[in-house]
Amino acid sequence: MAGIKALVWNEGRQKNSDANIERIYPRGIHGAIVDALSRDVSIRAEAATLEDPEHGLPPSRLDQTDVLIWWGHQAHDAVRDEVVDRVYKRVLAGMGLIVLHSGHFSKIFKRLMGTSCDLKWREAHDREVLWVTTPGHPIVHGITDHFVLEHEEMYGEHFDIPEPDETILISWFSGGEVFRSGVTYRRGMGRIFYFRPGHETYPTYHHADVQKIITNAVHWAAPAHASPSKYGHRPEVIP
Amino acid sequence: MAGIKALVWNEGRQKNSDANIERIYPRGIHGAIVDALSRDVSIRAEAATLEDPEHGLPPSRLDQTDVLIWWGHQAHDAVRDEVVDRVYKRVLAGMGLIVLHSGHFSKIFKRLMGTSCDLKWREAHDREVLWVTTPGHPIVHGITDHFVLEHEEMYGEHFDIPEPDETILISWFSGGEVFRSGVTYRRGMGRIFYFRPGHETYPTYHHADVQKIITNAVHWAAPAHASPSKYGHRPEVIP
Amino acid sequence: MAGIKALVWNEGRQKNSDANIERIYPRGIHGAIVDALSRDVSIRAEAATLEDPEHGLPPSRLDQTDVLIWWGHQAHDAVRDEVVDRVYKRVLAGMGLIVLHSGHFSKIFKRLMGTSCDLKWREAHDREVLWVTTPGHPIVHGITDHFVLEHEEMYGEHFDIPEPDETILISWFSGGEVFRSGVTYRRGMGRIFYFRPGHETYPTYHHADVQKIITNAVHWAAPAHASPSKYGHRPEVIP
Amino acid sequence: MAGIKALVWNEGRQKNSDANIERIYPRGIHGAIVDALSRDVSIRAEAATLEDPEHGLPPSRLDQTDVLIWWGHQAHDAVRDEVVDRVYKRVLAGMGLIVLHSGHFSKIFKRLMGTSCDLKWREAHDREVLWVTTPGHPIVHGITDHFVLEHEEMYGEHFDIPEPDETILISWFSGGEVFRSGVTYRRGMGRIFYFRPGHETYPTYHHADVQKIITNAVHWAAPAHASPSKYGHRPEVIP
Repeated sequence: MAGIKALVWNEGRQKNSDANIERIYPRGIHGAIVDALSRDVSIRAEAATLEDPEHGLPPSRLDQTDVLIWWGHQAHDAVRDEVVDRVYKRVLAGMGLIVLHSGHFSKIFKRLMGTSCDLKWREAHDREVLWVTTPGHPIVHGITDHFVLEHEEMYGEHFDIPEPDETILISWFSGGEVFRSGVTYRRGMGRIFYFRPGHETYPTYHHADVQKIITNAVHWAAPAHASPSKYGHRPEVIP
Repeated sequence: MAGIKALVWNEGRQKNSDANIERIYPRGIHGAIVDALSRDVSIRAEAATLEDPEHGLPPSRLDQTDVLIWWGHQAHDAVRDEVVDRVYKRVLAGMGLIVLHSGHFSKIFKRLMGTSCDLKWREAHDREVLWVTTPGHPIVHGITDHFVLEHEEMYGEHFDIPEPDETILISWFSGGEVFRSGVTYRRGMGRIFYFRPGHETYPTYHHADVQKIITNAVHWAAPAHASPSKYGHRPEVIP
Repeated sequence: MAGIKALVWNEGRQKNSDANIERIYPRGIHGAIVDALSRDVSIRAEAATLEDPEHGLPPSRLDQTDVLIWWGHQAHDAVRDEVVDRVYKRVLAGMGLIVLHSGHFSKIFKRLMGTSCDLKWREAHDREVLWVTTPGHPIVHGITDHFVLEHEEMYGEHFDIPEPDETILISWFSGGEVFRSGVTYRRGMGRIFYFRPGHETYPTYHHADVQKIITNAVHWAAPAHASPSKYGHRPEVIP
Repeated sequence: MAGIKALVWNEGRQKNSDANIERIYPRGIHGAIVDALSRDVSIRAEAATLEDPEHGLPPSRLDQTDVLIWWGHQAHDAVRDEVVDRVYKRVLAGMGLIVLHSGHFSKIFKRLMGTSCDLKWREAHDREVLWVTTPGHPIVHGITDHFVLEHEEMYGEHFDIPEPDETILISWFSGGEVFRSGVTYRRGMGRIFYFRPGHETYPTYHHADVQKIITNAVHWAAPAHASPSKYGHRPEVIP
């Protein structure tokens, strides 16, 4: 059984910059997510980082990837345009994409959205409550109506994204803000899920509900095996 | 100049039941909203209540109404089905509809949504912060990025409505909940705006931003003068 | 292995009225669809008709149904409101619903849409070409970019439905009309797919692509096993 | 009275390449559209072309533009990235954008959509019938349920765009294809309308209904005078 091939991409610069982060994620944020996904026997998860050759995203590997998970923060500009272009084309051709937290400002997410993807933020140990706004949606399967993250970075509206196809989760922050924390889009044949939580100084990716949502989203975003669309000149159907 | 004809409907039973409500809204919730709308010289606002003949909504009056504003709470079941049916057909034919607060459970809103329109609630003097999620939208013209209501009834997600055409405002409540507080839909040729705030024991409809949003929404929901759609049998365009 | 439980409902009055229809569908339209679905080993399909006790839709059976397929035409009014109400609540609770052809005017579809669901039509042996507008969507898995039905009843725009969550297929008719022939909605926890083709005087439900789409839609609409949403009063999350 | 400032941009290379085009549009496609818009006294329309300094789109002029209309075909690549970036930021800040016909492949449209915007096409004098799918929408004000263009280039589905906010018009072509010919989006505070017809070898922009739709769309896309959104760090609302 082949299973879904998930590739977890992380710029991977956090552990160098902060001993606290290394304590929380000794194998990196990507390592924690790969571990979580690997508990689902129908998913085969690997990691890639910015420092790998071609950022760990050569064409041959992307062609074999069903769902790409993206975490980046300080190094968005260091991702080469040629690789962004390659990921972009793979998404349009059907690869799923899950963009996490500060990945909202990644080149690939901004390119697929067509907006600035800007937002308000604050690092002040806010409490975050995430509410499900689409019960029954496969991405929130197994989640009750809400869950709580004791400490997180605040992201606040307005979040400059296109009107989502579906708004799955909305966050409440103790400082008084709200945020559309789980939103879906289709672009070409690819399915995209943006999921807000995951600041690097908190153990968010060890939280059971966060792991469950990312795992569910991998299943949701995995492509049906569609053939590529044909565009350009075509003769009449009805002569 | 004719102006936009707005009709503010209120079941109108609150003032009998509670001296406090009568103090806040001496002329009723409908009176307060009519007063607010009347400050816009391009709007001509009137009121109607449940106890009026035909609930104040005879065919001749509905035919002359551009936008109907609806507030109800305890008496949803007392609204006759025949009148609901009449309002429903007027909305499909182009009349705008603004549904306020507990009107989420009115017969007309449930009929137009096709869902239960259920939600969570709590009367506990929560503070409410309303955040704009579509800056630039005409309904939030003149509103900065958020505004605060010191005390309101809490409404919490999941709010069982169809995926909105547009999510304009999201509320934060001090007890930890969020709510899609301003949402738009088209049904037939009619535009619908649901706007959450307005529990009868608080002076919400005297708040400048709440009044501004309702006034903007009246402009937004007013119909273009379209001719009715023709349905049924039709011959070929291309013989 | 349990499989997906699909129930194909047909008013079932066609075969009495027309010898030609009985020739095309000797076991009824429902029989043809049950046969087609039964070729997928992961689906267990049964039929129900208007004349069965409780229209074949008693609570115990609906509770066991994952996806209901609905075909009706001349007898919409004969479907009892109490049964419509039961189906409606099951859809909000997560049961999938596939509405076929003239089912656009069924009580259940109009109730879930909140619009008139009216359209233009013509019985004149038009040729119909159905074009895929969302390649990669699971409902059109295995369909190339279009397929042709040599003869069908024409349905033309404007089709008075809410803006669809997704527009999957658009039809071309030889007389010069177009129609949104495959559209999806969520209502509560239920997924709804409207699929246009299927006039009773044509062998449409024997067409391989039509069968494929209905089969795909059964998989798409089958519910995740979500627990029911809780509404009403709730205490603070954050005291 | 200031009026709406509309700027009609055309790459403007057609007249050099084809005597027939110069006969149909002696003052260019942009000239024909400026003339049509100028019949509405509330619109002040001007033109700009690729060969003007800064493509006729210097910052000072864009800042004064309410709605930009874009026609391009052979010279998409000749539009400088710096100018595309400038237009992009103005759209997010609230300027309306109307993209015509082969402008689907312009840099600015692809950037705002986040997809390839590819499609099928054929130059074979197809007849085109455009059907209204949202009666009552201001963009189709004054249009009956359909109109016919005797000869046009065919554009066929799949059109690789995000799921539109609204699908306003769908086209039928005599060769057997369909196309979503009028679709709307919001990006940031800007409103976008894509409108299909307008191949340079046909007198499409002299057609009364085409002119009416472009004029309506200018009104629809003109911005409310919103203040810019503030993003980035912010302190607590609720201390």
